[in-house]
Amino acid sequence: MRDEIIKLETNLDDCTGEKLAYCMEQLFEAGARDVWYTPIFMKKGRPAVALSVMCREEVKDECIRIIFRETSAIGMRVSLQERVIMDREAVTVDTPYGPVDAKHLTYDDVEKTTIEFESAKKLAKENGVPLSEILK
Amino acid sequence: MRDEIIKLETNLDDCTGEKLAYCMEQLFEAGARDVWYTPIFMKKGRPAVALSVMCREEVKDECIRIIFRETSAIGMRVSLQERVIMDREAVTVDTPYGPVDAKHLTYDDVEKTTIEFESAKKLAKENGVPLSEILK
Amino acid sequence: MRDEIIKLETNLDDCTGEKLAYCMEQLFEAGARDVWYTPIFMKKGRPAVALSVMCREEVKDECIRIIFRETSAIGMRVSLQERVIMDREAVTVDTPYGPVDAKHLTYDDVEKTTIEFESAKKLAKENGVPLSEILK
Amino acid sequence: MRDEIIKLETNLDDCTGEKLAYCMEQLFEAGARDVWYTPIFMKKGRPAVALSVMCREEVKDECIRIIFRETSAIGMRVSLQERVIMDREAVTVDTPYGPVDAKHLTYDDVEKTTIEFESAKKLAKENGVPLSEILK
Amino acid sequence: MRDEIIKLETNLDDCTGEKLAYCMEQLFEAGARDVWYTPIFMKKGRPAVALSVMCREEVKDECIRIIFRETSAIGMRVSLQERVIMDREAVTVDTPYGPVDAKHLTYDDVEKTTIEFESAKKLAKENGVPLSEILK
Amino acid sequence: MRDEIIKLETNLDDCTGEKLAYCMEQLFEAGARDVWYTPIFMKKGRPAVALSVMCREEVKDECIRIIFRETSAIGMRVSLQERVIMDREAVTVDTPYGPVDAKHLTYDDVEKTTIEFESAKKLAKENGVPLSEILK
Repeated sequence: MRDEIIKLETNLDDCTGEKLAYCMEQLFEAGARDVWYTPIFMKKGRPAVALSVMCREEVKDECIRIIFRETSAIGMRVSLQERVIMDREAVTVDTPYGPVDAKHLTYDDVEKTTIEFESAKKLAKENGVPLSEILK
Repeated sequence: MRDEIIKLETNLDDCTGEKLAYCMEQLFEAGARDVWYTPIFMKKGRPAVALSVMCREEVKDECIRIIFRETSAIGMRVSLQERVIMDREAVTVDTPYGPVDAKHLTYDDVEKTTIEFESAKKLAKENGVPLSEILK
Repeated sequence: MRDEIIKLETNLDDCTGEKLAYCMEQLFEAGARDVWYTPIFMKKGRPAVALSVMCREEVKDECIRIIFRETSAIGMRVSLQERVIMDREAVTVDTPYGPVDAKHLTYDDVEKTTIEFESAKKLAKENGVPLSEILK
Repeated sequence: MRDEIIKLETNLDDCTGEKLAYCMEQLFEAGARDVWYTPIFMKKGRPAVALSVMCREEVKDECIRIIFRETSAIGMRVSLQERVIMDREAVTVDTPYGPVDAKHLTYDDVEKTTIEFESAKKLAKENGVPLSEILK
Repeated sequence: MRDEIIKLETNLDDCTGEKLAYCMEQLFEAGARDVWYTPIFMKKGRPAVALSVMCREEVKDECIRIIFRETSAIGMRVSLQERVIMDREAVTVDTPYGPVDAKHLTYDDVEKTTIEFESAKKLAKENGVPLSEILK
Repeated sequence: MRDEIIKLETNLDDCTGEKLAYCMEQLFEAGARDVWYTPIFMKKGRPAVALSVMCREEVKDECIRIIFRETSAIGMRVSLQERVIMDREAVTVDTPYGPVDAKHLTYDDVEKTTIEFESAKKLAKENGVPLSEILK
């Protein structure tokens, strides 16, 4: 399956880690699909990070505004990216501690089932067991 | 506001940090708008870096030649990137130690003022005060 | 000289380093031209890596299948990248310990010769000398 | 002022980013003073992370057990670290949007005031303003 | 269980990724217990790496010589580190594709079993199945 | 040869890259022997850096004051590190473009000559040739 998604990217050498975490929070609240930071080394010996955001067209403008408002960015790169994605179906997987949410994924002849992390974590906490007891 | 800019990218696993810093210097002297290094992990267990350069069309050829001449690169990716940028106006901001250069930036309803770092640093050095005294 | 190459990219926060190394191995065996990992910082405080693959059209589908099969990825970005590459010619370089394979490279007025690392390493091991004895 | 603190360190190449974030959460809940991850490159081409924990003697054993239980670690380095710390006093700082919690810090002739990030963030959210409005 | 191990550390800004990987190889051949690289940012805007080696007293001198011989290091930090380690016992774990080597590990009330990665990888390759089929 | 040196370390999640570069400058001016930044991932999803400084006892207090004054640090780890260092002798190396400063280094049976980077860079700039013409 294929789809398209927008990528926003900017480099930040004058923004603190605290603010960067807050900006990520706001981007997810605005509907961004993915947000991540990459450590980079910029001019004049400055340790910095690159901010990357993947989002749908309908939240793009809001994401751009959040970045301009909450960080020191004065510009950002915008591109349209093509994606290949696996077909997905919500399923439930049984564990010794009860059912967890999972996704069954297929692409051509490749098939796999991924457990939803938050669902496994909840079960681990409820049962006071290590996460690996649930995930295995 | 929107504009377009060229991005050059290459991965380097056979170039020393000293040479990489020298190459960055030369790229800025040639007119590159931004240059940065990203730590990456390449084949055969090699720690390496990715070099990224943003530049205008008119200095692109010179930037490509500098990279080929000063690093071990034998090829590089070239792309045209669309950018969204804030409207900017040079202003002056008063501080207890005198005026510093700044930029007033606007985009839609977002407005902010960023102090030019080099201007603040100069004032901090002249007055023998911590940088945060100027920036606050 | 110019050519085009395909880039695959995906972010992985639920895959171990051991698996990532194994996936890289399989991608090279399938004919990928380059594969690398970039440390990134993802949502919910998760240290993660971005996987990047450069490959020709004819091995693209196999590379996509390997990534879906061997990692936790459920989607990946696919793009066509233009490259500038130096003209290359295989040559032999004499060292005090015998000949090593090298490439003579040219682009415009830039000319350089790069020794093949594996060839130099072999000679260093055979002669029990530091690698720098061969490379200098 | 000086004090002593315990440092725990281990390298992890067979643990996912999801689990690492969960382990950090549990370490803070157990009373660790600081926890961080450093991206590293390990043997056999494996991207990995180093986990570092700073904690008091009284929670050391619990932190060790959490790391062994929630990650793939089979050993860790333990050391006692001497620290120099600034004298601190809780203060309140006025902002146009109301008071925020802060710390007034002194060491020799160095003096500074740091605003508590969470307090500033709360105020920014309540007033619907960018964080920099509060922090400046 | 506790033991002691030696740590060697040095920063390298004038060594290529190719040489770093070769140096790691030689350190493991000389009996180092662990070797890793950390991306760092050094003076004059130089991207670099820190090399860390854990080794027993009896191979320490050889490891120091390898680092001085194969890298550009002119000095290195040497320290003795105390470690807490889990008690370990070699066991075999059954998988649908046959037995794999594993370690059963215990520390206080924490117990876990870790599959030897190389053993699982061998089985995955022999049976032409994804690694996750063996590891799950 | 062996000597001892002091190491200062602190984690910074509320300091910009610009300030970090300025702090490094000041530490070197105060006589620090080495200063570097390591990208790390801290609590609450904050990308951050660890600052490390190596210095002699006689400049330790000034380095501590600089860090407290110019960064957001409120504490730092202090330790004494033993080092193994190569014996060194200043020498001159001839190149096709004239002599460059170098160090001849020995440790046990290991011997090597390292060219001073700044000296080679000066010669490359004066002669308008790539750095690799001088270094080879």
